[in-house]
Amino acid sequence: MIYDIAIIGGGPAGYTAAAEAASAGLSTILFEKNALGGVCLNEGCVPTKALLYSAKVFDGAKQAAKYGVKTETPTFDLPKMIARKNKIIKKLTAGIRTKVAESGAEVVLGAASIQGKDSAGCYQIACNETVYQASHLLLCTGSETVIPPIPGLETCAYWTNREALQCKELPASLAVIGGGVIGMEFASFYNSLGCTVTVIEMAPEILGGMDQTLSEMLRANYTKRGITFRLNSRVTAINEQQITLETPTGTEQITAERTLLSVGRRPVLQGFGLETLQLTPARGGVEVNEYMQTSDPQVYACGDLTGRSLLAHTAVSEAEVAVHHLLNRHPYPMSYRAIPGVVYTNPEIASVGKTEEQLQAEQIAYTVKQLPMSYSGRFVAENEQENGVCKWLVSADDTLLGAHILGNPASELIVIAGLAIEKEMKASELKQIVFPHPTVGEILKESL
Amino acid sequence: MIYDIAIIGGGPAGYTAAAEAASAGLSTILFEKNALGGVCLNEGCVPTKALLYSAKVFDGAKQAAKYGVKTETPTFDLPKMIARKNKIIKKLTAGIRTKVAESGAEVVLGAASIQGKDSAGCYQIACNETVYQASHLLLCTGSETVIPPIPGLETCAYWTNREALQCKELPASLAVIGGGVIGMEFASFYNSLGCTVTVIEMAPEILGGMDQTLSEMLRANYTKRGITFRLNSRVTAINEQQITLETPTGTEQITAERTLLSVGRRPVLQGFGLETLQLTPARGGVEVNEYMQTSDPQVYACGDLTGRSLLAHTAVSEAEVAVHHLLNRHPYPMSYRAIPGVVYTNPEIASVGKTEEQLQAEQIAYTVKQLPMSYSGRFVAENEQENGVCKWLVSADDTLLGAHILGNPASELIVIAGLAIEKEMKASELKQIVFPHPTVGEILKESL
Repeated sequence: MIYDIAIIGGGPAGYTAAAEAASAGLSTILFEKNALGGVCLNEGCVPTKALLYSAKVFDGAKQAAKYGVKTETPTFDLPKMIARKNKIIKKLTAGIRTKVAESGAEVVLGAASIQGKDSAGCYQIACNETVYQASHLLLCTGSETVIPPIPGLETCAYWTNREALQCKELPASLAVIGGGVIGMEFASFYNSLGCTVTVIEMAPEILGGMDQTLSEMLRANYTKRGITFRLNSRVTAINEQQITLETPTGTEQITAERTLLSVGRRPVLQGFGLETLQLTPARGGVEVNEYMQTSDPQVYACGDLTGRSLLAHTAVSEAEVAVHHLLNRHPYPMSYRAIPGVVYTNPEIASVGKTEEQLQAEQIAYTVKQLPMSYSGRFVAENEQENGVCKWLVSADDTLLGAHILGNPASELIVIAGLAIEKEMKASELKQIVFPHPTVGEILKESL
Repeated sequence: MIYDIAIIGGGPAGYTAAAEAASAGLSTILFEKNALGGVCLNEGCVPTKALLYSAKVFDGAKQAAKYGVKTETPTFDLPKMIARKNKIIKKLTAGIRTKVAESGAEVVLGAASIQGKDSAGCYQIACNETVYQASHLLLCTGSETVIPPIPGLETCAYWTNREALQCKELPASLAVIGGGVIGMEFASFYNSLGCTVTVIEMAPEILGGMDQTLSEMLRANYTKRGITFRLNSRVTAINEQQITLETPTGTEQITAERTLLSVGRRPVLQGFGLETLQLTPARGGVEVNEYMQTSDPQVYACGDLTGRSLLAHTAVSEAEVAVHHLLNRHPYPMSYRAIPGVVYTNPEIASVGKTEEQLQAEQIAYTVKQLPMSYSGRFVAENEQENGVCKWLVSADDTLLGAHILGNPASELIVIAGLAIEKEMKASELKQIVFPHPTVGEILKESL
């Protein structure tokens, strides 16, 4: 048989597309070489959040006295935290397996390899010694951790996100190379558990791409909690537990029992026969149009492979766009105007729309409207002695351009701003929306 | 001098209106007989949330082991919880005092009494032996607890919300008369601290006005945690600690060390000279049009006094509508389409737009789209062995009509649905919004 669509990669883009395409009646086959759910579910977004929540419970217990609760000296059980995290992955992957199966999509576990397109315009895909045929392809092979070429790196048993999620015994000290989102989330987790953490970042500030004022506030917060930061710094050599840095003030040596590499991720382009398709490249990945079609209109690409935003939720939305287009069922273009970005530290940072840095670079006039989080009664009631900020960027004609929040639960609040920005709402319009009182979210209205 | 506007009542409507009117250049005077912030800030919304959060920290410490954290046996310090709550009220009232003062509004602490309108169309207001004059009035005197006429009520030193917030010593048992929002929030708090709680409700289900399926689920949850519910039951007599009930199965006697009255609230109509204005009444309060004008167009009324929704956030929005109208600065009518309602139990219930019960009564066709909260990876990561539900009500033409959520942080998520409902968005439109992953809020998209 010839499938209507063959999907390579079972991460958020792949499983979303498979379920939607099959539910809509397309004959659909999905190839996954490791585990359904991809990096996001198995060794990324979800497992880190399970561990970070355990750390938050631990932090909460340590600080319970502030709220009139006595807990003696709380301790933690790292293997139990890891086991719980693994149980959650198991539960959620089972959920996805069920969802995809119920949609009627066929799932093949194995490494798929595209063999090319035949004269009838049909694609051959080999997997587990069988060759499958499909009239359309959706490529969503995701991304992989960049391993930087540091001299001596092979002398240390370094971690990536994968190993950092499976740690059974807490290291006394951890060096985090790369202060982006992944680096900061693990730095936060290991700091909460009492590990001595150093974050090394090449740029002048952590969390490049996020609002720099908020990133600086978060860094100050973690500095107080014991994390050491080395900004504008580059690792030039590693010798087992010795790390050599070039810092603005000269060469420095630090010792760390463990090193975590979190300098970035890049699209996976190898190992599945991409080269047989001769697609136009872009941004280190594959070029796509607004409907997620590659330079071959029968081939779609979604998620990290496009090199666009490397976020699971972008991948899911792109997959929905691709399937709607393929079905020709109310097709709509992918919009990148309001893709939220979240750092799940404690407190969280979340951001959507433009940053000040972007607006300045694009020479767009804007005004800043912001308030400290302590302006919200609910925030004060639930965050003793904490603070944060809610910051809006508004255009000259009152249109909402960007929102940046430091303070819990920023991750859940940011979509309110995202919805308003995607719909190109004015500040005056959002101010007319009734926010429940008392909520932290009210700060989004108040700060306008 | 003749003030442009005199505001009677310094709760959420009053202080919002005072700050907005004065900022816009109106000469503004605000009268408050007790404390700025009103019931909401001093003995309502905010203080309950401070106490409920302490209880949540205590519950969290008791359940920390589920997340790999050991805490021995946590204990609580009720006076410390109350002291913290009082400190928060102090901080927030100071914030409001500053905000109003900075706007330029004059604040008079004292019981104001309207003397009537003179021949020049000017109102006289007496307060602290001075008579003030104003060309417009804004009435926002709020509401008061209904004390039901139960025989023998005077024999028990009953609590209202006010006393329940100042409790220094935990009663062994508590009878809550009225299972509405206020009753359930206090039932939750005292249950968490180990008090034996019985909730007595006249209606067939607690939380009248909320989605009845969710209310039932919440009741089942609290039943498991030890609260006893008596539905369809009426208190017919009280004799000190003995409460006599008429239940569907006959007369019953229960004993409770304390009794909390939470059968409802009603507009405050007495004590400030309302009768001199001869306004048209409505819903137990004062009739207003869509711009919050009473039957005398120079007199506005906002908040609980209108008998509409008795919620602080409605009052704030109404005050904004009234001031915009008085200023004739982009006036817009008050919309009640998307007023969120929240019950701050643990888990929370939040609701916006229509309920199934309302749609059925109005004979509007709808479909239910719902998912268990455990469909959200973030919810699973942060709520071990908990569940809940996210329920949308959608019209035949795909318009979003109502949303009902049981599960934390429902209070913060509901405004996403409120924004969509207020803007009359279609389900298909909301599905195109990019929700950050992993968040609990994603459930709002997934369940469509």
